[in-house]
Amino acid sequence: MDHLEVIRRCRVLSDCTEEPGHITRTFLSPPMREVHRLVGGWMEQAGMRVRVDAVGNIRGVHGEGPRLMIGSHLDTVPQAGAFDGILGVIIGVALVERRPPCAIEVVGFSEEEGVRFGVPFIGSRTLVGDPVMDAEVLDAIRAFVLDPAQIPEAAIGEEVKGYLEFHIEQGPVLEKMKRPLGVVEAIVGQSRFEVSFLGKANHAGTTPMNRRSDALAAAGEWIWTVERLARETPDVVATVGQLEVEPGAPNVIPGLLRASLDVRSASNATRIESAGLLLSVAEAAGGRRGVTVSYEQRLDQPAVPMDPAMVRALSVAVKTAGYKLHRMVSGAGHDAMILARKVPSAILFVRSPGGISHHPDETVLPEDVEAALAVGMRFLENWRPA
Amino acid sequence: MDHLEVIRRCRVLSDCTEEPGHITRTFLSPPMREVHRLVGGWMEQAGMRVRVDAVGNIRGVHGEGPRLMIGSHLDTVPQAGAFDGILGVIIGVALVERRPPCAIEVVGFSEEEGVRFGVPFIGSRTLVGDPVMDAEVLDAIRAFVLDPAQIPEAAIGEEVKGYLEFHIEQGPVLEKMKRPLGVVEAIVGQSRFEVSFLGKANHAGTTPMNRRSDALAAAGEWIWTVERLARETPDVVATVGQLEVEPGAPNVIPGLLRASLDVRSASNATRIESAGLLLSVAEAAGGRRGVTVSYEQRLDQPAVPMDPAMVRALSVAVKTAGYKLHRMVSGAGHDAMILARKVPSAILFVRSPGGISHHPDETVLPEDVEAALAVGMRFLENWRPA
Repeated sequence: MDHLEVIRRCRVLSDCTEEPGHITRTFLSPPMREVHRLVGGWMEQAGMRVRVDAVGNIRGVHGEGPRLMIGSHLDTVPQAGAFDGILGVIIGVALVERRPPCAIEVVGFSEEEGVRFGVPFIGSRTLVGDPVMDAEVLDAIRAFVLDPAQIPEAAIGEEVKGYLEFHIEQGPVLEKMKRPLGVVEAIVGQSRFEVSFLGKANHAGTTPMNRRSDALAAAGEWIWTVERLARETPDVVATVGQLEVEPGAPNVIPGLLRASLDVRSASNATRIESAGLLLSVAEAAGGRRGVTVSYEQRLDQPAVPMDPAMVRALSVAVKTAGYKLHRMVSGAGHDAMILARKVPSAILFVRSPGGISHHPDETVLPEDVEAALAVGMRFLENWRPA
Repeated sequence: MDHLEVIRRCRVLSDCTEEPGHITRTFLSPPMREVHRLVGGWMEQAGMRVRVDAVGNIRGVHGEGPRLMIGSHLDTVPQAGAFDGILGVIIGVALVERRPPCAIEVVGFSEEEGVRFGVPFIGSRTLVGDPVMDAEVLDAIRAFVLDPAQIPEAAIGEEVKGYLEFHIEQGPVLEKMKRPLGVVEAIVGQSRFEVSFLGKANHAGTTPMNRRSDALAAAGEWIWTVERLARETPDVVATVGQLEVEPGAPNVIPGLLRASLDVRSASNATRIESAGLLLSVAEAAGGRRGVTVSYEQRLDQPAVPMDPAMVRALSVAVKTAGYKLHRMVSGAGHDAMILARKVPSAILFVRSPGGISHHPDETVLPEDVEAALAVGMRFLENWRPA
């Protein structure tokens, strides 16, 4: 299939949805059966041996012996676009059709987004021998008429020698740089905190400005500083995305506020240092107003470097295919982050027009998909199992 | 009754509540009947002719001819304290017992807080001939077995020559100044706005800091500036009390934010100028980030000056009773604000320990109530119907 057929097939899968008129397809939901039927059919057409493993990953193998795995996920966020995850699976099948000189296993993961049970990476964690064994996940597996007893057999063994993922960027960087593709060097680490500001609720009319312990005023200073410090610190992004104020009435000074803080960087040291600085800024902003600041860490996910040899080989493939190279970090997690625990892994990003993702307007440019296929073939022509 | 009995009776009324264990007593709720029975009994003991008017205000008259009205409200906010409003009614009765040389009508308003129907001042608006005629208010009046047809007769006529309200300060100023009492010169005007920040929701990991239109970052800058400008502007308080963020997830840059802005000042010019400045600060903070700011005005309540002659007479009464004078503005609305439309009106504030109000810990000092009674008697001894 050519690049236009890749795009067409991504859009065909959009009809497999839990929510008519939108693309919403969570872990082992009913529309995933039709996805298996379609993707499985395309894999068979490409000459692959196809199976659905015990957590619902669809897997097609072509060739014998040590092999490269190519994959991404087939589940979506609610009201998603057509390409997040899906594009990487269809590109895998398209590359197999072109008969590269190595054995390949294409995997379409059943779960990456964490929507259905709040736990992401159910598909890829199974492959690296760290399956999610929550009771409700196991119930969903049984309900899809799969057998949890067979989960251990879904793990990859010595025969898989590397993992390559094609994925839309889901951000604006490649578009801004005018590059169709990006070679991912690392997936950022992520710190997440819940930060609480405990001031004193009081009457907005009768309490003079200098007698207030306004939790929101303290948080306002902090939020502004989070933005400023993150802008000034190279390779860091920091976001306050969630914020709740109590009591939350126009005529009452806020007494309590809870906010989220998300800090990401490809450097663990930079991330941890920045998070610490931002928490101390919160304490200082509170201290100036008699507002007590406390926090709980909700996530401490180290950065995951991609395999240096694969990054090099992908970079060479980009250049020999005639494209300009852009190396970058991924600000979002991907299945490659999980596979990297077991095998050399890499990601090739495809430009996201407008930086838009997790939205019906999410799209790809045909010439960028063509570029991804060309670079993929260059890479496979030179890939040797280590 | 002495000052201790005034306090005791306020606490007796605490048992009249919709919510056992708390003081919650809204407009014409069932416990208001018991309040009428108790307060009516005390009024009769003090030699007053008692009636409940068509909106449920309890009114006792002592003496003949032109009279001074003394009152406050008997309804409460949810989970209230024992003194907000109630204290002013009981002090009125206590003063009548002391037989001042003028006719007096004591009124206990049925509604001031606006809790039950979101409309405040149902009691006092009736007295000035501007009754609240909402269908649900009229239904509540009928349900309490009162007759809406008699509302016009509840309005005050030529016989009422002035209105005096004793009320707890509900703020920290008198405590900080170490004064038991404050003479209110004006009730602040109030501007209220809903301010919206429309940015662009985006991925918190993949969107670089310089490519964001973060509605909350813009609002953070604004909120901090609201506090700073209000601190720098004499006689203004400004509060952002309510704030909602969408989509409101830790890993999504906020795309939309709605916040309240409340600005108060005894000077209408200062208030309007400050509100305009704060709205332009919001626009500027948004503009720096590609965030569109819009607003709607929800309230534009001018300041209400108290009657200069009554303020002077109250000030003299404070001094001749042996207390230090403190003149101040009221940051909250009170029934006197409504009565001032018709008759010369004034308020004497009683210190609020800790500045606490609208809370079970709301209280008064016995010596402050004693002072209020002494000052009240001095005032009444010299009061002459204009």
